[in-house]
Amino acid sequence: MTEKALVLFSGGQDSTTCLAKALSDYNGAITTIGFDYGQRHAVELEQAKIIANLAGVPFTIIDMTLLSKLTQNALTRNTIPIESKDGELPNTFVDGRNHMFISVAAIYAKQQGISHLITGVCETDYSGYPDCRQDFIHSLNHTLNLAMDTSFVIHTPLMHLTKAETVLLMDSLGRLDWYKESHTCYEGMRPACGKCPACKLRLKGFEEAGISDPLAYETTVSEVPG
Amino acid sequence: MTEKALVLFSGGQDSTTCLAKALSDYNGAITTIGFDYGQRHAVELEQAKIIANLAGVPFTIIDMTLLSKLTQNALTRNTIPIESKDGELPNTFVDGRNHMFISVAAIYAKQQGISHLITGVCETDYSGYPDCRQDFIHSLNHTLNLAMDTSFVIHTPLMHLTKAETVLLMDSLGRLDWYKESHTCYEGMRPACGKCPACKLRLKGFEEAGISDPLAYETTVSEVPG
Repeated sequence: MTEKALVLFSGGQDSTTCLAKALSDYNGAITTIGFDYGQRHAVELEQAKIIANLAGVPFTIIDMTLLSKLTQNALTRNTIPIESKDGELPNTFVDGRNHMFISVAAIYAKQQGISHLITGVCETDYSGYPDCRQDFIHSLNHTLNLAMDTSFVIHTPLMHLTKAETVLLMDSLGRLDWYKESHTCYEGMRPACGKCPACKLRLKGFEEAGISDPLAYETTVSEVPG
Repeated sequence: MTEKALVLFSGGQDSTTCLAKALSDYNGAITTIGFDYGQRHAVELEQAKIIANLAGVPFTIIDMTLLSKLTQNALTRNTIPIESKDGELPNTFVDGRNHMFISVAAIYAKQQGISHLITGVCETDYSGYPDCRQDFIHSLNHTLNLAMDTSFVIHTPLMHLTKAETVLLMDSLGRLDWYKESHTCYEGMRPACGKCPACKLRLKGFEEAGISDPLAYETTVSEVPG
């Protein structure tokens, strides 16, 4: 496709995969944006800059610290320990996070004449986050087009992939090396802690894919494949 | 109803009417929020404070200057003259404004255990703004509930009223005097200019309702009903 596309880019594993796929799928200009929402792992935005540079695409950071002012959660409050209880939403859930990110991305995209929005949300490994589901994305797509009289298409190439399949997709795109710079750890650690829910999910994916994660982990982590 | 409700409150004529109606409809606590989005008529927020004080309800201003950074329009850029051409969206349209306001209001409401959101959007006199339509509101309501696993109900009591009917509703609620403090003028003038599209719409409504607008206008305005 020669059309332009906007990738929602956090510097994480999933959006890094989306960026690689977008560069493969679109001939038109690819633009990326990330969000500063007071996340405890704000280091991901520094990594996003590095990867955008490797990819040769522009990267813009949008100030969304509004989100951390509006909500109480472990992801934007260092004083709240990260927890996950059976049958409950993990306390890292930030109310309305993907809703707000995709909505702001759409407004941003419209100003630049971009109608393709690409996000790495994934229902398969969605950790109980309601705003990672396909039916939410469909509904938001419809709502945004009504809101602005537009024809946005929200693409979610990872929606139904397992983390292992995402790793294999990146391998097929020849960009596994970018994962070295991608950031996943919710604790914001580099080398990664290997223990938080996000690190565990990432490590499990690589293990299932039978591929070594090029990311550096603390040496005490026993689950690091390799 | 004894349930709590949140009124999206700009200090304008419509949301002032919504506030009066909410106080009549709900026995539970009424809370209000307004948005600073770099609007040229930011004086409306000062008026909102005054009216919230008259009503005895809390009023919180949310910083949404992000919107004016994202978009180019006459409402947030003093350097762009306000214009309206046939067949085109007025250049006062702020892409995604109501979408963002209602979305942020929902996130804010959820933190306080509020599920009723009340907004003064109106399809009848919608000036070509797509995000004032009923189908948009329905779609956003559905999307927000999917995004946060909630049961929000977005109420739009003015959706199908003419401006004249809104004036008559306020009269029936016994709060016409609050209109003296409400703000409408897009140019941010107090006394109001009486000439911008917003002032003209307001004046037409009072004229059709056969009721005097208690708001002060510049004396040169001939349309002020007497």
